[in-house]
Amino acid sequence: MTKKEFRKLAESKIIILDGATGSNLQKEGLQPGLCPEQWMVDNKEKVIDLQFKYLEAGTDILFAPTFTSNRIKLSEYGKEEYMEYYNRELVGLSKKAIEVFRQKTGNQRKIYIAGDITMTGRMVAPHGNMPFEELINVYKEQISVLLTAGVDLFVIETMMSLQECRAALLAVHELCDLPVMVSLTYQENNRTLYGTDPVTAVTVLQAMGADAVGVNCSVGPDKLHDMIRQMKEIAYVPVMAKPNAGIPYLKDGKTVFPMNKDEFAKEMAILVDCGAGIIGGCCGTTPEHIGQTVKAVKDKKVPEIKIGHYRALATEKNTVPIDLNGRFMVVGERINPTGKKDLQASLLKGDLSIVVGMAVEQISRGADFLDINVGMGGIDEKEIMAKAVEEVTKAVDVPLLIDTSNPEAMEAALRIYPGRAMINSVSLEKEKIDKILPLAKKYGAMFILLPLSDAGLPKDKEEKKRIIHEILDRAYELGLTREDIIVDGLVNTVGANPRAALDALETIRYCKNELGIGTIIGLSNISFGLPARGNINSTFLAFAIQAGLTMAIANPSQELLMNTVLAADLLLGKEGAAQRYIENVRELNIQQAVSESKASDKSGIKKDNV
Amino acid sequence: MTKKEFRKLAESKIIILDGATGSNLQKEGLQPGLCPEQWMVDNKEKVIDLQFKYLEAGTDILFAPTFTSNRIKLSEYGKEEYMEYYNRELVGLSKKAIEVFRQKTGNQRKIYIAGDITMTGRMVAPHGNMPFEELINVYKEQISVLLTAGVDLFVIETMMSLQECRAALLAVHELCDLPVMVSLTYQENNRTLYGTDPVTAVTVLQAMGADAVGVNCSVGPDKLHDMIRQMKEIAYVPVMAKPNAGIPYLKDGKTVFPMNKDEFAKEMAILVDCGAGIIGGCCGTTPEHIGQTVKAVKDKKVPEIKIGHYRALATEKNTVPIDLNGRFMVVGERINPTGKKDLQASLLKGDLSIVVGMAVEQISRGADFLDINVGMGGIDEKEIMAKAVEEVTKAVDVPLLIDTSNPEAMEAALRIYPGRAMINSVSLEKEKIDKILPLAKKYGAMFILLPLSDAGLPKDKEEKKRIIHEILDRAYELGLTREDIIVDGLVNTVGANPRAALDALETIRYCKNELGIGTIIGLSNISFGLPARGNINSTFLAFAIQAGLTMAIANPSQELLMNTVLAADLLLGKEGAAQRYIENVRELNIQQAVSESKASDKSGIKKDNV
Ligand SMILES: [Zn+2]
Ligand SMILES: [Zn+2]
Ligand SMILES: [Zn+2]
Repeated sequence: MTKKEFRKLAESKIIILDGATGSNLQKEGLQPGLCPEQWMVDNKEKVIDLQFKYLEAGTDILFAPTFTSNRIKLSEYGKEEYMEYYNRELVGLSKKAIEVFRQKTGNQRKIYIAGDITMTGRMVAPHGNMPFEELINVYKEQISVLLTAGVDLFVIETMMSLQECRAALLAVHELCDLPVMVSLTYQENNRTLYGTDPVTAVTVLQAMGADAVGVNCSVGPDKLHDMIRQMKEIAYVPVMAKPNAGIPYLKDGKTVFPMNKDEFAKEMAILVDCGAGIIGGCCGTTPEHIGQTVKAVKDKKVPEIKIGHYRALATEKNTVPIDLNGRFMVVGERINPTGKKDLQASLLKGDLSIVVGMAVEQISRGADFLDINVGMGGIDEKEIMAKAVEEVTKAVDVPLLIDTSNPEAMEAALRIYPGRAMINSVSLEKEKIDKILPLAKKYGAMFILLPLSDAGLPKDKEEKKRIIHEILDRAYELGLTREDIIVDGLVNTVGANPRAALDALETIRYCKNELGIGTIIGLSNISFGLPARGNINSTFLAFAIQAGLTMAIANPSQELLMNTVLAADLLLGKEGAAQRYIENVRELNIQQAVSESKASDKSGIKKDNV
Repeated sequence: MTKKEFRKLAESKIIILDGATGSNLQKEGLQPGLCPEQWMVDNKEKVIDLQFKYLEAGTDILFAPTFTSNRIKLSEYGKEEYMEYYNRELVGLSKKAIEVFRQKTGNQRKIYIAGDITMTGRMVAPHGNMPFEELINVYKEQISVLLTAGVDLFVIETMMSLQECRAALLAVHELCDLPVMVSLTYQENNRTLYGTDPVTAVTVLQAMGADAVGVNCSVGPDKLHDMIRQMKEIAYVPVMAKPNAGIPYLKDGKTVFPMNKDEFAKEMAILVDCGAGIIGGCCGTTPEHIGQTVKAVKDKKVPEIKIGHYRALATEKNTVPIDLNGRFMVVGERINPTGKKDLQASLLKGDLSIVVGMAVEQISRGADFLDINVGMGGIDEKEIMAKAVEEVTKAVDVPLLIDTSNPEAMEAALRIYPGRAMINSVSLEKEKIDKILPLAKKYGAMFILLPLSDAGLPKDKEEKKRIIHEILDRAYELGLTREDIIVDGLVNTVGANPRAALDALETIRYCKNELGIGTIIGLSNISFGLPARGNINSTFLAFAIQAGLTMAIANPSQELLMNTVLAADLLLGKEGAAQRYIENVRELNIQQAVSESKASDKSGIKKDNV
């Protein structure tokens, strides 16, 4: 099955998944403490019969019962050496169920088998001690077998860690082009065990190329209305819902799921209205639940799937939407060794304490994002960049901009970053466009479009526009959309070019109003070589915000600048701006200058009369 | 002759004046030391003959030889009691000359007699000790007689003081509706004896309703090219030129004028090309000079006269143009007793030293104009306002805004102000529109249009626009044009209305882009009731300047604001802005706030990790 076929299927019908496997097989004799894989190969007919019944009920995508068949999980039963064997055999059971279904019913409708993957039980770094690349490799082992066994697509499900979802998704993508659905399990606080909310999961995973993102297990469908709506609001891939038959309780020592098929089906129909286009059941659901659900949704409209991407960055736990008409955002620029002796010395020693300190400081000053630049001679930039991203991610919870022109350092950082980062930057220079732009696609990063080419700075605004459009075209060819891109306004110094500010403002207006694309500027260039630079910077910032600028790279310790941001949003009547202003503005204590000589020489005073 | 007829005449032909009177009559026997008026009534035929010859040469407007026939001048010869007699007799000579001309030539073309007025020889206050109202009365005495004698229009000529021109012009206007030409004499530095430049004279006098403004006497026409061009550039009334036959020199004890009729005529033709539409000769010119000039210009195109007024304020000595696309301007707001105990106390005593100190201080801080407001209980506002204007005018050389809602105080100030002031302000409130708006016309002041009505603040932007247009219509009916008006953007506090800034910005853009009218705001209202007001004010100022604001009323001692003005002009690429920035910007020494408690509570920091 290709990704395109998957998308078409999801656009044409409500995709029906299967129901529970574990809870149904337990009724057939699967005991807790047994290795489920071994039990299943010992009881093939029971598995085939369950899957046959799901097909009879209407399942379009059958999950092969390979859920826990990864090397780490199997090692809990000392069965790791059978990993390949189990996965092959278990996919075989799904194939057999389809064969039986076709034989018994003569039905020739399309049915797909999803290779089913879940967590390993070991925590990945930095929360746990399993290295990220090792986890990817564990998944790759299982995925390779599933591919050989002939699955049509993959499902990564019942995930509690977004970073582990990322590992599994990268593993699939690095081995094949098959579609992948990713589904997480949320606690009652609407966060995963590791603290990720559903919007963040959708934001990060769809940007990385997941073909569907959703929720499974967790609770009953009656508790998922808001969550599905929230996910649907920002999703541009189908949203999947595979909840339990309610929250189980113990009765006479047995686990009981409270929802019968009718209640379940009724609630599933509501989830379709909320936006779920791929539905099934998890623990406690039976072929009857699925059959009833199929009936309940058969006249429902297939939820529409958006085309445009979602403009947001994310950490592992939280999403920060970027709204072209929303509040102005500041990227802290200070983590950059250029001209900073202390930082250089510590980076040379591999010591990231100053970097972390700068991260904390900038956020305390109001930075919305942090730029991470460790470019300097004498260090392994790839290693230090990855380490810096890891340390900053542990210390603070704001999204990062990865600022390097070294493609390997860029990839290392994007690979381990557990949220959605922004690439700083992609220009039309060959190295950037050929090597860095594809990383935005692979790792689901936004990127800053820097209107430069191998020929250097554009010589006029026509060339600037041409470069912008060439880079946009390349990005669109990769499947990125305008929401994935922030254009750098390319600010020169007004000291050398009186039109420097006007040109940048024109680019900002053009991108926002004509292209619907966000913009960023590196503020301080504007005042290069002039006195009282902070004054020029803050006035220019006010101009740019009024012109529609989305964000700026700046030093948030400059109180004048941060005050200007707060005042600008207030004056533009942006939502919540008054409260943000009152809570965050600082009274600036401006000391009168000592020398007043220049100003007293004004021609307006009649000297003979004064 | 009506003003309209005068304008039509000036649009239809190059108006020919006469040539010298004095230098020609001296050849006929008028001796220095004699009273010229007495000599002329004693030698009527010689005067009639000279004037006849000018008519023969082509003169359209004959200057009655009443030049020095004011009471003060006549008193130098002890002849003040003959003032009425002389003026009546001398106008009679011009009438006789016309009669002779018609009899002898049969020519019936239109010929007009101008009552001729000049300086008294006594300096008016504040330079001299003659009160301004006394001077007006001296002129009124002569003008009354000239009116009775039947002159068609007036010419105020060979003036060296702009303030004395204003007195004579007011005297004419308060007695009749006849046209008035005003002409000054400039020294070789292109300023009058009292320091006024020709652009300033034109600015002030045309705004006050002079029907032509120009230059006479001084030098030869060959030295006036630039001066006429400068005047023409800004004039919306005809420009008059009546130069000498070159600069005289002594030869064998006799005063000789070097230009013969051919040289003179050739140069006069060039002055027509430079924009002079009313031409004649002063000292040293003869009927032959005028006759030759008529021939030299007869195929010349009549210089076009502009319709739109000139947007500028002026002191007695200098003009400050207001360019909607030019540099941003600041009106110093501090001379206002509201909330200032010291100032209130000194005004109660009639002591203006604090006012003068504030004027000097604000200009040293970069104010382009000063607002003068002395409104408080317990004082005679009319008296104190006039005194304040006089004292400030003596101390500093920047134009003033007269800020009072008391029509009598407004008129007293405008009357004695020796330049072109701005009225602050005219609203649609009955008292303002009926009593204050006409003062703008009479005294040639610009005015601030405040979009308020008797019903108070406009309730929405439609009402705001409607009020603006109603006041504009009233102003246009009086003959004022959009260049005479600056609209107040009417800024409310963003603390109460999130759209306060956006609404004001919209008014600014509307006035500038749709109406071609300048705008002003009282900046500090925007931040009323909010913390860190200077920060909101300066950010709003940047917004407003970018939106096209012309000027703001503000406290120029607020360095943040003044720096913002400098930076805004720099960033907008305005002419000369880079140099102004470098020369005037102040490095602000911002002290870090002591308490940092609020900001360190930012959610982005993972507290358990910090
Ligand atoms: Zn489950
Ligand atoms: Zn003269
Ligand atoms: Zn003269």
